[in-house]
Amino acid sequence: MKLEPECVGCLFNQIMRALKTLKHDLLSEDILQAQKKLITHLSNININKEETPVIGKFVYDIVSETLNEPDPYKHIKKQYNELALEYYSKVEKIVNNSEDPVLKAIIVAAIANTIDFGSQHEIDFISDLKHFQMEKLVINDYDKFKDTLTKKTHILIVGDNSGEIVYDKLLISTIKKKYPEIKIVYAVRSAPIINDVTIEDAKFVKMVDLVQVIESCPTPGIHIESSTEEFKHYFYLEDNIIISKGQGNFESLYGLDFPDLEIYYLLKAKCTLMERLLDVKIGDFIFKKKTIGF
Amino acid sequence: MKLEPECVGCLFNQIMRALKTLKHDLLSEDILQAQKKLITHLSNININKEETPVIGKFVYDIVSETLNEPDPYKHIKKQYNELALEYYSKVEKIVNNSEDPVLKAIIVAAIANTIDFGSQHEIDFISDLKHFQMEKLVINDYDKFKDTLTKKTHILIVGDNSGEIVYDKLLISTIKKKYPEIKIVYAVRSAPIINDVTIEDAKFVKMVDLVQVIESCPTPGIHIESSTEEFKHYFYLEDNIIISKGQGNFESLYGLDFPDLEIYYLLKAKCTLMERLLDVKIGDFIFKKKTIGF
Repeated sequence: MKLEPECVGCLFNQIMRALKTLKHDLLSEDILQAQKKLITHLSNININKEETPVIGKFVYDIVSETLNEPDPYKHIKKQYNELALEYYSKVEKIVNNSEDPVLKAIIVAAIANTIDFGSQHEIDFISDLKHFQMEKLVINDYDKFKDTLTKKTHILIVGDNSGEIVYDKLLISTIKKKYPEIKIVYAVRSAPIINDVTIEDAKFVKMVDLVQVIESCPTPGIHIESSTEEFKHYFYLEDNIIISKGQGNFESLYGLDFPDLEIYYLLKAKCTLMERLLDVKIGDFIFKKKTIGF
Repeated sequence: MKLEPECVGCLFNQIMRALKTLKHDLLSEDILQAQKKLITHLSNININKEETPVIGKFVYDIVSETLNEPDPYKHIKKQYNELALEYYSKVEKIVNNSEDPVLKAIIVAAIANTIDFGSQHEIDFISDLKHFQMEKLVINDYDKFKDTLTKKTHILIVGDNSGEIVYDKLLISTIKKKYPEIKIVYAVRSAPIINDVTIEDAKFVKMVDLVQVIESCPTPGIHIESSTEEFKHYFYLEDNIIISKGQGNFESLYGLDFPDLEIYYLLKAKCTLMERLLDVKIGDFIFKKKTIGF
């Protein structure tokens, strides 16, 4: 996706929020200085042409530089994984005991896309899951997905956040149980970027023991040009289903067309741009088969 | 006030929201193009030094240019005034029948700071007023104000939005009734800027028949350097009380010190910057005597 009008202000707010979250006592002047770097960058590029994951990477490079930390979310990511793991067995039971475990695991993986373990949200995940109503999955292409599962040989899941990865693992286990013949590959970012999953997270939550884990790109969304050869191989594989998790991955694929690929977006809508592009409301869940233009 | 980190993203969002509100069918590319002008401007100025009303004016000049309209809010402003006038006699009765009409008129003038006559908010004004609880006036320097009213000879009210001006008029009438010896002057912007009041509004709602109306500056907040001589005269007048209405005027005075002036801010907090600077919540009402640094 190219930059949309909703993104411009958001990028500056992301710098501010990230810096405030990561260093509480940072001065306003330092935050403004960091934002100034983005102003300079945006004034030097063609904002109508640059892909959002590339700009997103630039934004988080500014955050890293300002804090002088190559992986400023390291501790938060570990904490998210640990907390997500605490609930795993409870959630696994809910999924296994449900009428359609694969559908339930998809819903769990969507809800996990917004777990915010900061503040009081820890217990909300279980509560959200128990009180989930199918109407919240406002775009639901599960029937198409179920149908395609019986026909394809491979699934590539492009991961999004730490914490969330724990329930991607549950989704994978659940699919493997019902469709043991499908080969599943899980992609993590090739370098630390925001709270996105990297190989560290995949090792920590033992995703590496369950499926093949590969590295994609160092951007907060799929950027084919800066992706590893291995990622490109699995991305363009024949007989493949791609599950793209979260808004960053969605934004990066939106507007690009891959007529030969079968891609499903699984995410929670988190901003007004999603509202406009997908005709949904913030907070809605989406499991959508990618179509031309989307 | 100088630019704060909260303002940067907000300026870009203001361009987007203004353009979307004023021209529903504008293309994303055109909005992005308008935002690009702000990027270029911010990259050329010292963002640590520029005053927010000056940047605010630049932002709305971009909006005007993009729409090729010198006063794009003209129709909306007229509509706001008309609708506010419809409720005048009802609200006037509530104020006159209250225990302390001046305090009530101050509350009305604060609530009027956020009337959004778009969508379903028309009736909310009366409802907000009837259900108003004093706890919502989280900063309340009315006792100081009441005390000073018996001592000073002049009041300068610096107006904010169209619609709202109708209830500034009610505040003025109410003060005049109780303190007929005080001379009140009302300031409007010297040129159209967003939905801020200009001399057109003052004539339309007959403010000109009630008090002397003067023009301040063409910026969406007080900017002394670009203000008229008449405004400067009344602003710096001895024995004067200044009532600064709304967030734009607050922001422009915040951080500047006028030790010889007695200034009261009357506004509704509308953004996270207000939350941080004033330790309030969005939606809270403020009637605050300006102190050094604030």
